[in-house]
Amino acid sequence: MENSYRLLISCPDTVGIVAAVSQFIANHEGWLLEASYHSDIDSGHFFMRNEIKADSLAVSKDEFCEKFQQVADQFSMQWSLTESTQRKRMVIMASHASHCLADLLHRWHSGDLHVDIVAVIANHNTLQSMTQWYGINFHHVDMTDKAMGNQAISQLLSEYEADVVVLARYMQIIPPALCQQYSGRMINIHHSFLPSFIGANPYQKAYERGVKLIGATCHYVTEQLDEGPIIEQDVVRVNHRHGKEDMVRLGKDVESRVLAHGVRLHIEDRVIAQGNKTVILE
Amino acid sequence: MENSYRLLISCPDTVGIVAAVSQFIANHEGWLLEASYHSDIDSGHFFMRNEIKADSLAVSKDEFCEKFQQVADQFSMQWSLTESTQRKRMVIMASHASHCLADLLHRWHSGDLHVDIVAVIANHNTLQSMTQWYGINFHHVDMTDKAMGNQAISQLLSEYEADVVVLARYMQIIPPALCQQYSGRMINIHHSFLPSFIGANPYQKAYERGVKLIGATCHYVTEQLDEGPIIEQDVVRVNHRHGKEDMVRLGKDVESRVLAHGVRLHIEDRVIAQGNKTVILE
Amino acid sequence: MENSYRLLISCPDTVGIVAAVSQFIANHEGWLLEASYHSDIDSGHFFMRNEIKADSLAVSKDEFCEKFQQVADQFSMQWSLTESTQRKRMVIMASHASHCLADLLHRWHSGDLHVDIVAVIANHNTLQSMTQWYGINFHHVDMTDKAMGNQAISQLLSEYEADVVVLARYMQIIPPALCQQYSGRMINIHHSFLPSFIGANPYQKAYERGVKLIGATCHYVTEQLDEGPIIEQDVVRVNHRHGKEDMVRLGKDVESRVLAHGVRLHIEDRVIAQGNKTVILE
Amino acid sequence: MENSYRLLISCPDTVGIVAAVSQFIANHEGWLLEASYHSDIDSGHFFMRNEIKADSLAVSKDEFCEKFQQVADQFSMQWSLTESTQRKRMVIMASHASHCLADLLHRWHSGDLHVDIVAVIANHNTLQSMTQWYGINFHHVDMTDKAMGNQAISQLLSEYEADVVVLARYMQIIPPALCQQYSGRMINIHHSFLPSFIGANPYQKAYERGVKLIGATCHYVTEQLDEGPIIEQDVVRVNHRHGKEDMVRLGKDVESRVLAHGVRLHIEDRVIAQGNKTVILE
Repeated sequence: MENSYRLLISCPDTVGIVAAVSQFIANHEGWLLEASYHSDIDSGHFFMRNEIKADSLAVSKDEFCEKFQQVADQFSMQWSLTESTQRKRMVIMASHASHCLADLLHRWHSGDLHVDIVAVIANHNTLQSMTQWYGINFHHVDMTDKAMGNQAISQLLSEYEADVVVLARYMQIIPPALCQQYSGRMINIHHSFLPSFIGANPYQKAYERGVKLIGATCHYVTEQLDEGPIIEQDVVRVNHRHGKEDMVRLGKDVESRVLAHGVRLHIEDRVIAQGNKTVILE
Repeated sequence: MENSYRLLISCPDTVGIVAAVSQFIANHEGWLLEASYHSDIDSGHFFMRNEIKADSLAVSKDEFCEKFQQVADQFSMQWSLTESTQRKRMVIMASHASHCLADLLHRWHSGDLHVDIVAVIANHNTLQSMTQWYGINFHHVDMTDKAMGNQAISQLLSEYEADVVVLARYMQIIPPALCQQYSGRMINIHHSFLPSFIGANPYQKAYERGVKLIGATCHYVTEQLDEGPIIEQDVVRVNHRHGKEDMVRLGKDVESRVLAHGVRLHIEDRVIAQGNKTVILE
Repeated sequence: MENSYRLLISCPDTVGIVAAVSQFIANHEGWLLEASYHSDIDSGHFFMRNEIKADSLAVSKDEFCEKFQQVADQFSMQWSLTESTQRKRMVIMASHASHCLADLLHRWHSGDLHVDIVAVIANHNTLQSMTQWYGINFHHVDMTDKAMGNQAISQLLSEYEADVVVLARYMQIIPPALCQQYSGRMINIHHSFLPSFIGANPYQKAYERGVKLIGATCHYVTEQLDEGPIIEQDVVRVNHRHGKEDMVRLGKDVESRVLAHGVRLHIEDRVIAQGNKTVILE
Repeated sequence: MENSYRLLISCPDTVGIVAAVSQFIANHEGWLLEASYHSDIDSGHFFMRNEIKADSLAVSKDEFCEKFQQVADQFSMQWSLTESTQRKRMVIMASHASHCLADLLHRWHSGDLHVDIVAVIANHNTLQSMTQWYGINFHHVDMTDKAMGNQAISQLLSEYEADVVVLARYMQIIPPALCQQYSGRMINIHHSFLPSFIGANPYQKAYERGVKLIGATCHYVTEQLDEGPIIEQDVVRVNHRHGKEDMVRLGKDVESRVLAHGVRLHIEDRVIAQGNKTVILE
């Protein structure tokens, strides 16, 4: 896999941003592999993602960044530049349910998820053997004392220098301090089509309401439970013959798929959260 | 189109119901075109729909019904028998928006909706000319005075002997008395994936929440707004580039499709409402 | 609706195209509403669509085009500039089936399709009254003598100065000369998920094969029947209970939806055909 | 999991079949958990599946079967009776690709697939370690000499007394003798939406044709490659930005999902093949 730079930008919208950025890239011989924008009419904000072939550039990454800061200053940009070959360090958190974790581990093992899964943390040890078969460290954190448990989790995330934390059906509340620390890089899968059925037992609620589709929602974690910016959602058809257990089973497929898709978008640096919404640049 | 009898049954579940019913049908030479059941574990209720070739029966419809009452009594059945060629009398209610009405009228005109559309009632006259092109009576009811308006509607529905009332994006509240009178045969389309975004302006709310799918819900009308038994739902994908107007436009397609599907299920006598859920027998 | 310019470009890929184009736009004060690109690795071709707020430009359209030609020459571009408020002149061709025509006419009438439907041409007169209710000219062309019929059609298209021709389930073969004349602007809906079931009676073939999904394909017309560049496709689920007539009925919805979507993409100047494929810039 | 009997029937259609069967079941106190039928108009065939609570029956399974033979004889039925708790012995065959195998193994391990996976046979040993982690026997069969390889496979299938054979992206041709021996119980996943792109390299062909959806097809294996009765199909949306590798990656999800669904239908005895089509009784 060839290296590429991903330049993510958000700033107040005005004339000349694309020109300035693309001129800057071209001036340094940068070959654009991909580029996409979004002008948000409501907020007057502009979002941009450029993917540049790394070895096409006539300058080093550091030099590129240093010089780009001048363009950024001119337009009051928030920006970042990441490298496609510099894999993010991902920690996955889980509880009992195996489907999302198994799915992510298999995608990673097959080479379809360009990330380093550095550890799995779980409040049960059900998934230890599976995790270890993949050669990944597994940490069981006892949550009997929530404060102590969360302290241990916080420390593990720090030690592993996690760039991104994925809650793969992790069934504990994340404390506010951790939500803030990993804001915009802690990803949860909720087992309903949000905003329907916020909170516990969504399949039970879906069953009781008699809906004809059930869904799953991948979102960034915020302090407000199940209220964070939505990255991806999908649904599957159910009918009156499906009991709650069938919904749980069918839901697993949607959860795995939606989480994997959301994680992929994040690790490819395609998601910009703005307020409680996301812009997906692909 | 050949005539068939649709025998709908619901009763407490026990051994021998299917045997008794199908034996009864066979004893009168009835040829089964379709049959479907559902045993609801939670409620202990049994649901059944048989579609019988009318001219295969050795007895008249009246005789069939009279004799069947004995089977029904034995199992404490609620039951009905309708004829496929006896078209239901449908009144459609609308406001300004034309998409659901145009869709239903076109399906009916093409021969794809086996129903008699006897009138369109609207609280605006925007849709009068379109309705009349199809040769259907159009009634404009002024809702400035809601009580008087609803009185006029109630009377029109009675005069037209409506078997089924379809609210094709009719934007007024139906009074409780009418909800009760047409219970289980008044069908609404709500422009969201219920239970998300109950009430007014669902697309605005969907836009603000940043969901990645928007939907529509076809349900029987009850006194609780948007809480009635759901017949059909579907969704369509949206993204950050879609403004509220785009959602409204994309939503129209889903609304029309979901309403048409729900109406079809109802007029084919495939829907049994039980509590706030539905059993769809196909 | 405010006016915007849509600048469509395709050229051999190289460094600096985006920079040159966006710099040019910015130099004339152009405010970008949308922009999207595609680099096709296989062919080494680059595709770009810019949507620019017309009244943000400091120059007239003519001046803009004249000056842009220099940029175009530099990169050997094929390009075009259209105005969002200059509605394309659309002629719809049909036969007996009403669903696609009714759907397009209703969208247009509702203001959801920004186009001028200048005429409907059909080889039957079944759809005359419906067309005329919308205030649109209807021409019945007798196809008993195909050569004479096609001659009449060709002349009508010329007289109406058709920018785009939509075959809304028109069941006659288009002669090669017309295919060529309207290359890239004659759109057909085929009632199968191509390349499955090319040619006549696709639903019959789908029924016989026992597929579990049926579909529809919107494509540009070329001399090779059903082989043109695909703009849009979709499918709907079927099962063993669906006879051929059910498939025809279910297919109508997919056909209407897919054609409407494809037509929308075309009239918004979002489709570039390259060989027998399309790039959709949205 | 409580035991239930699944009574599958197919016979020429006539009056009284349902009555005779359900009367027979009721006479022996059988409690129906599920029942579904299909009358095929074209072939004049009738299909039926009854699921009966085992412990509700007043007779043993053998007695039930013995007596039922009289009903069967009366209507010239082909029939079978299986027990839900008697798990089918499944052998999975694979090559290099892991996604379908990993998916099936995980579902089985999670208790969502009620089957005994007795062995995995592969013509490569890539998937050995993964298989063995699940405690399942793995056999690597060398296919350099196809005849010898197929002989070894045939023998393994016999030794394992396979009830069902699943080709989880097994990339070798199955010899006619094996196709016949396992007719109606050898299930393949083809990586295209059949009948599009029969044979090798379907994603390459899909890429070249520029389709907007790619799919997968689960079918029973017959001697005609990719022509067997279709059990299940599904699709996923692609666009011009997706290269062939992206299609392969996206296709994996659809393949896994479609195969798992098809396998579930088969092991729940819900599929009856008739000619090159299937009836799915759920």
